[in-house]
Amino acid sequence: MSRPQKRHRSHSDTVINTRQALLEAVLELISRDKSFDAISLREVTREVGITPGAFYRHFPDMNTLGLELVTTSFSTLRAMLITVRANPIPEELIIRRSVETFITYVRAHRRQFQFIARESFGGVACIREAINDEFKQLEIELARDLSRLVTHDNWSESDLRMLANLMIRSMIQIVNQQLMARPRGEDDDELIALAEKQLRLIALGANSWQSNQNKALSDDTSKTGKP
Amino acid sequence: MSRPQKRHRSHSDTVINTRQALLEAVLELISRDKSFDAISLREVTREVGITPGAFYRHFPDMNTLGLELVTTSFSTLRAMLITVRANPIPEELIIRRSVETFITYVRAHRRQFQFIARESFGGVACIREAINDEFKQLEIELARDLSRLVTHDNWSESDLRMLANLMIRSMIQIVNQQLMARPRGEDDDELIALAEKQLRLIALGANSWQSNQNKALSDDTSKTGKP
Repeated sequence: MSRPQKRHRSHSDTVINTRQALLEAVLELISRDKSFDAISLREVTREVGITPGAFYRHFPDMNTLGLELVTTSFSTLRAMLITVRANPIPEELIIRRSVETFITYVRAHRRQFQFIARESFGGVACIREAINDEFKQLEIELARDLSRLVTHDNWSESDLRMLANLMIRSMIQIVNQQLMARPRGEDDDELIALAEKQLRLIALGANSWQSNQNKALSDDTSKTGKP
Repeated sequence: MSRPQKRHRSHSDTVINTRQALLEAVLELISRDKSFDAISLREVTREVGITPGAFYRHFPDMNTLGLELVTTSFSTLRAMLITVRANPIPEELIIRRSVETFITYVRAHRRQFQFIARESFGGVACIREAINDEFKQLEIELARDLSRLVTHDNWSESDLRMLANLMIRSMIQIVNQQLMARPRGEDDDELIALAEKQLRLIALGANSWQSNQNKALSDDTSKTGKP
């Protein structure tokens, strides 16, 4: 990967390549079953073939490197979502196509996804928070998309966020289960079928949802508690 | 906690206490923001106040200790579920009461839950798999409970598993988001409200679900793909 293809490579090329190689090395170590906070700076530089001291020419510390991985992983995901939005598909196929696109993305960026999955509950607070903020941002965007599809009498803004949260997190969960449970998930079909069914069930629920009625209902049930 | 209350404590008491202290020490280190694979045996024994060598009188290695934490964490959870099942509640309150019980459990066993949340996607394969197997077992049990509540014409066995998976994983997700995002989640009400709404939406979806129709529908949509 870091074979010198051009002899006359400039200094700044080398800097960029080494920086990239450090990012790749961490993803590689994560995919070989390590948590981010169990990876030492020394291990990463050994993987790349530079001295530990040379690390600091590229990043001030390991956490800054980790935060950059969060940003790049989510920009890949966001690029995919923009493509999905740009190509309108017939309503009855929205769920299947979205799931297929999502799975394809995960396959193509397996190691980035493994990093996000592991570190969203991992031991480094700043990375965990950065991932959580990115997910919240995605939820806001999805809630905005969904608000164009629903009847506004039935949906409060906070309930749309709740729906977006459920959709995104259940998809992430399914993928994480597969990514982590088996060395290589060969059974994409099973995975797609499960994801599709869960989204379809959520969509069915969303069709009968009424923010107001739901509020009324929960007022009622609290009344049954005290006469 | 390990203050010697009786002077004449027996040798086997001490062994059991040290063993328990080792388990507690790992939970404590996890709650202080560490991944299991970033915790060294030396750190654990230092926390307990024994020599590193003395560890092996209690566990053959760190992973065996980790697996015991998985077992104990899930038996606490299972004990809670058995209590829930033993006390039938009116149908309109099932969701709210289940959510409340679950949140109470999480609060009372915060560190166990943090361990499960982190290590279900963590860097140690055998622990990850053990947690995943426990979740699968819970899904099977919940699917069995749900099969008593649904019309069987509408629900295939595998769809009930899909529903149980969605319910359990979405609850776990919500709790994990809270456990990990903030130092101390003081806003139980917000948490309970979100969990309750998501379960209510899933239940609404489940009410209109038909395994056969869903199959027919997906046959239909695949037909629209090719004429």
